[in-house]
Amino acid sequence: MTDISPADSILAHEIRQQPEVIARLLSQSQFAQVAAALRAAKPSYIVLAARGSSDNAARYAQYLFGIHLGIPVALAAPSISTLYQSPPRYRDAVVIGISQSGQAADVLQVLKDAAAQGVPTVAITNAPDSPMAQQADYHLDLCAEPERSIAATKTYTAQLTAFALLAAHLAEDGALFADLHQLPELLARALDIASVIAERAERFRFMTRCVVLGRGYNYATAFEIALKIKELTYVIAEPYSSADFRHGPKAMVEEDFPIIAIMPDGATFLDMLALAQDMRARSADLTVISANPEALALAHLPLPMPQGVPEWLSPIVSVVAGQFLAMYVAAVKGNALDAPRGLSKVTQTR
Amino acid sequence: MTDISPADSILAHEIRQQPEVIARLLSQSQFAQVAAALRAAKPSYIVLAARGSSDNAARYAQYLFGIHLGIPVALAAPSISTLYQSPPRYRDAVVIGISQSGQAADVLQVLKDAAAQGVPTVAITNAPDSPMAQQADYHLDLCAEPERSIAATKTYTAQLTAFALLAAHLAEDGALFADLHQLPELLARALDIASVIAERAERFRFMTRCVVLGRGYNYATAFEIALKIKELTYVIAEPYSSADFRHGPKAMVEEDFPIIAIMPDGATFLDMLALAQDMRARSADLTVISANPEALALAHLPLPMPQGVPEWLSPIVSVVAGQFLAMYVAAVKGNALDAPRGLSKVTQTR
Repeated sequence: MTDISPADSILAHEIRQQPEVIARLLSQSQFAQVAAALRAAKPSYIVLAARGSSDNAARYAQYLFGIHLGIPVALAAPSISTLYQSPPRYRDAVVIGISQSGQAADVLQVLKDAAAQGVPTVAITNAPDSPMAQQADYHLDLCAEPERSIAATKTYTAQLTAFALLAAHLAEDGALFADLHQLPELLARALDIASVIAERAERFRFMTRCVVLGRGYNYATAFEIALKIKELTYVIAEPYSSADFRHGPKAMVEEDFPIIAIMPDGATFLDMLALAQDMRARSADLTVISANPEALALAHLPLPMPQGVPEWLSPIVSVVAGQFLAMYVAAVKGNALDAPRGLSKVTQTR
Repeated sequence: MTDISPADSILAHEIRQQPEVIARLLSQSQFAQVAAALRAAKPSYIVLAARGSSDNAARYAQYLFGIHLGIPVALAAPSISTLYQSPPRYRDAVVIGISQSGQAADVLQVLKDAAAQGVPTVAITNAPDSPMAQQADYHLDLCAEPERSIAATKTYTAQLTAFALLAAHLAEDGALFADLHQLPELLARALDIASVIAERAERFRFMTRCVVLGRGYNYATAFEIALKIKELTYVIAEPYSSADFRHGPKAMVEEDFPIIAIMPDGATFLDMLALAQDMRARSADLTVISANPEALALAHLPLPMPQGVPEWLSPIVSVVAGQFLAMYVAAVKGNALDAPRGLSKVTQTR
């Protein structure tokens, strides 16, 4: 075990800051201005460039912009610019770079390529003085205060919320804003899951691998929870959509194979439920993150989420369970919570 | 062990068919016609829709179209159409659906949405009579003869070659065609790796997890080899680009952690070499697929590839080593090679 209690780690502190970080972000006027600029640009599609947790936020934006705004999203492959030095033509697009530190060199290069082509650019960072924030035509500040733990938590949910706010402004839909203003309260209630997880985390003491399943909006949540598990517990955790999982990888599932399923109510629920039932029939070990009693009843470890979370915002709430799960399992394994081995806060890649 | 020798499986037969399948595809006139139609459409970007191995072929196309043609690629999220029933506006795009069977219902839906919007569509399948082939404005036939083994091999390399041929026609670059015509001979030489793998596959008898690393063009190869390993050996295998791996997941690597690295000569080589050296310094177990002596010298299991493979075509050659690796490790584990547990040849997802 680590010397300090997990609940006293910087990581735990930053997870618990999320309701206040999101409340602060909701009060910002910057989103209306950037939305007006994007609306004027009339893009045929949006290019998102990011790495790590920020790339998982980009996955959320793909569903958000597709479903609410009808705008297709392309996730950039930065090495096309950096290693192959052949930046694509971003004509008719808007390019958005996402990075907590604003220092990701490869993402910065994508923004520079777009600017050189006269294509509008936006940076979403937690660092207004950073190279990316300075480079882009528009900057959205996450206003999350410095993130000190190496595993990103509050900046991830702030990135999702920034995209959600941008989409609400672009859609000019009052119902979306009403949903958004419930977020701080919903997140505060989601934090209550910590005690359940703290009590049961030891059951994962000898886990060496697992799969995290989510779909639609929560495809991003599957990726982000899997990343937290890898960073903090050093256990291999592979994220899948329920559809992709059926295309081959489900062959891996044998008795006691650990599966974490994100199952909010909404358009993906029945599809996820059918897969979870199939996995349960194969005697997999199921952890379920959901507000739905039928889904929770399937689980060896049910992680109940607050009722009444709108599906499109459920990734911002349900990831909290995964953040605590990764943290408490890491503590059970005796790992350093705030500084996982071999990682640094700013990762430079080309 | 299985009752029949692995080398006598349908899977082995289909892996060995690849040089002749690719040679047949190279002789087809259909690519020039579809390229002419695409050129006339002048798309700002291309949307690719696929699942499973076909989605890995789409990942290759993202680099191919980006680097050779400067065209950005968006990988579709089919559930936006199927579960959320909110198809994005594909204005200024061309939409390409990829499916071995041509029966993927969710990919078919993306083609139908695009057609309803008046956007040009292409289907790439191994089944000219299939719903996708019939739906699309243009069909590219893989001409690979029926694939009977559940794990896709020859249709995957045929899909990559179809994209490469399309790109060569769009670029109107004779050097690319010269490269392409070397493929059957290079693939035939790559098949020689089977004996090395058959001899050493037992070393993976107790492997429960691994990571597959590739970058740029071979990001797709990392995904496809990882998928073959999961489908056939039931071992969890997670694919990463070297850049994404540094953003967190590398924390998992401890002594003897199995890593498979795809390291062709070219733009990504030095980046992959630096990561492989770092992993070796952490005492990871390294399998290296490469023609480069410096890369092979780092490996516990070196898998030498033919010399002189152009980087842009290296995914079509290097995946062969992964196909044989998955097959022989599955045989060592006593798994059914042609019909992995829990899978069927045509997977229907919504």
